[in-house]
Amino acid sequence: MKIAVDAMGGDFAPGEIVKGALMAAREYKQAVILVGDEERIRVELGGIDPGELISIVHAPEVVDMGEHPAVAVRRKKNSSIVRATQLVKDGEAGALVSAGSTGAAMAAALLGLGRIKGIDRPAIAGVLPSEKGYTVLLDAGANVDCKPQNLLQFSVMGYLYAKRVLGVANPRVGLLSNGEEETKGSELTLAAYPLLQQAGINFIGNIEGRDIFRGTVDVVVCDGFIGNVVLKSAEGIAGALYNTLKEEINRSWLAKIGIVMAVKALMRFKKRIDYAEYGGAPLLGVNGVSIICHGSSTAKAVKNGIRVAMESVDNRLVDSILDSISQTGINEGVGSKLAKRSV
Amino acid sequence: MKIAVDAMGGDFAPGEIVKGALMAAREYKQAVILVGDEERIRVELGGIDPGELISIVHAPEVVDMGEHPAVAVRRKKNSSIVRATQLVKDGEAGALVSAGSTGAAMAAALLGLGRIKGIDRPAIAGVLPSEKGYTVLLDAGANVDCKPQNLLQFSVMGYLYAKRVLGVANPRVGLLSNGEEETKGSELTLAAYPLLQQAGINFIGNIEGRDIFRGTVDVVVCDGFIGNVVLKSAEGIAGALYNTLKEEINRSWLAKIGIVMAVKALMRFKKRIDYAEYGGAPLLGVNGVSIICHGSSTAKAVKNGIRVAMESVDNRLVDSILDSISQTGINEGVGSKLAKRSV
Repeated sequence: MKIAVDAMGGDFAPGEIVKGALMAAREYKQAVILVGDEERIRVELGGIDPGELISIVHAPEVVDMGEHPAVAVRRKKNSSIVRATQLVKDGEAGALVSAGSTGAAMAAALLGLGRIKGIDRPAIAGVLPSEKGYTVLLDAGANVDCKPQNLLQFSVMGYLYAKRVLGVANPRVGLLSNGEEETKGSELTLAAYPLLQQAGINFIGNIEGRDIFRGTVDVVVCDGFIGNVVLKSAEGIAGALYNTLKEEINRSWLAKIGIVMAVKALMRFKKRIDYAEYGGAPLLGVNGVSIICHGSSTAKAVKNGIRVAMESVDNRLVDSILDSISQTGINEGVGSKLAKRSV
Repeated sequence: MKIAVDAMGGDFAPGEIVKGALMAAREYKQAVILVGDEERIRVELGGIDPGELISIVHAPEVVDMGEHPAVAVRRKKNSSIVRATQLVKDGEAGALVSAGSTGAAMAAALLGLGRIKGIDRPAIAGVLPSEKGYTVLLDAGANVDCKPQNLLQFSVMGYLYAKRVLGVANPRVGLLSNGEEETKGSELTLAAYPLLQQAGINFIGNIEGRDIFRGTVDVVVCDGFIGNVVLKSAEGIAGALYNTLKEEINRSWLAKIGIVMAVKALMRFKKRIDYAEYGGAPLLGVNGVSIICHGSSTAKAVKNGIRVAMESVDNRLVDSILDSISQTGINEGVGSKLAKRSV
């Protein structure tokens, strides 16, 4: 199954995107469809023979970061993001990967692929580093104001993503709150808590901000406003620490080598925080695999995004969400409730 | 003016509290009233002559962390937190400092000192390290669900705190959101935005999570749920980084010295993140100075909390909030609107 890649989306498009696609084709023997301005893509490919694994679909239009996503996606039928999404819808590609506007990728997926029945709102699943591996945080920014039912659906999708794609046996799902006690929380989380308890997933209760990076939980559920703030705060603090350590370098020649190594370790950690470095964030809840990469994705990040897309396809992520929601699936309580709505 | 210190509140009370009070008395020549079980306080003072700067007010009861704050505060009139607050109300102390239950300190302040007219809800002002100094974040956890009017009041109080106590000439106030554009935000922040614009403060618009630690803003306004999550996430990520670096130590003997230094630098930063290390978080919006220290405060943290209390008194923090809210004060628009309610 081929993977469609939005060659025009991202700060370093099409150069880094094309490079990343080539890397993935070679490393994973994965067939990739580069979607975008054919001439520019060919320039980027240069003398390189793309081989059988690389094909091009011409889509000259581009959705800019400043445009209203839903409006642009409806109007620009020949934009790379719309065409890439269409390829998935038509079954010509198994998944798409884009480092362009998150809003445009969302709008294109909603319009082109549609929501999975029973899911009111798709969510972006950010994958963060923890002391022990990775933590899935969703929603990472797709939905600003959420209802308890949204958080319930996020929890089921996050559970399935961690289980199917990250390979965690029985993922621990936590609800992000201002205290561990069941009585702690906002109106939203207090109302969501009993729903998650009945979801048939491995719900471990409320968790606090510090648990996100501790590895004590596999899936963190929150609304997209908080998800966005937490992700960007983490980026910011890692950056501040990085600068602090760089300043230390000048303090002693003896310490220089060690500090340089420490800074490198920190840079690795800082990069891992950026979920694009993990390989992009899947958009969960739509009828198809759509992987959203960071706007500043390099070739390596794009390659990793393609890997995440492959893993999501191989592990039948969308089907497993469909099954869980539309049948009793992983849970008896809410699963059946959701099922009624999706029939 | 004396400072009342809740000698019984905190994980290391009364030992570290008494020690911290002694340190402050010596270092700042500040008169301190230790409020709590007289016998236990005397044991902690040991052979040390407290001198004229240390006095004791006997208050044998303690509000435990598990108790419902408002109920406990009403019932335990002889608890150290209630008596310490009463000393401020009666004018026998200029401020109080407590490392006990935050909820109990809040409840005691609301009951004992009362709200400043025009302030619907007091807020905890956390002081965080940034690359360039400090950033005030409020509300750091007092109010879970907020209204736009609450955020407006927080912004004015935070502005005044940064100006009067931290000495920032014209503090830049940012509204924590999921994007910098004015159109970004939750229902709450979108409604609060125009109010902050008219508040007559130096409102710089929406800021993102990463700005908190960058030093591009002096005051960050958010609801207490997000404030709590952000603070604890910051603690968590610093802890994860610290552990990552510690692991690196074993990689190379050459690097050991440098990494040890890097770890030390990181520990310094990690400590600064804990707002108790700065010296406690003022509870803004009540008729008196109440400084809340972290539960795990050491003597040094208590000493710093006393310093913050002194600075708040010296800079007439409460009066400046009163003036700004009840008169036109720092702003023409909202100031006068608020004034109508406070008359």
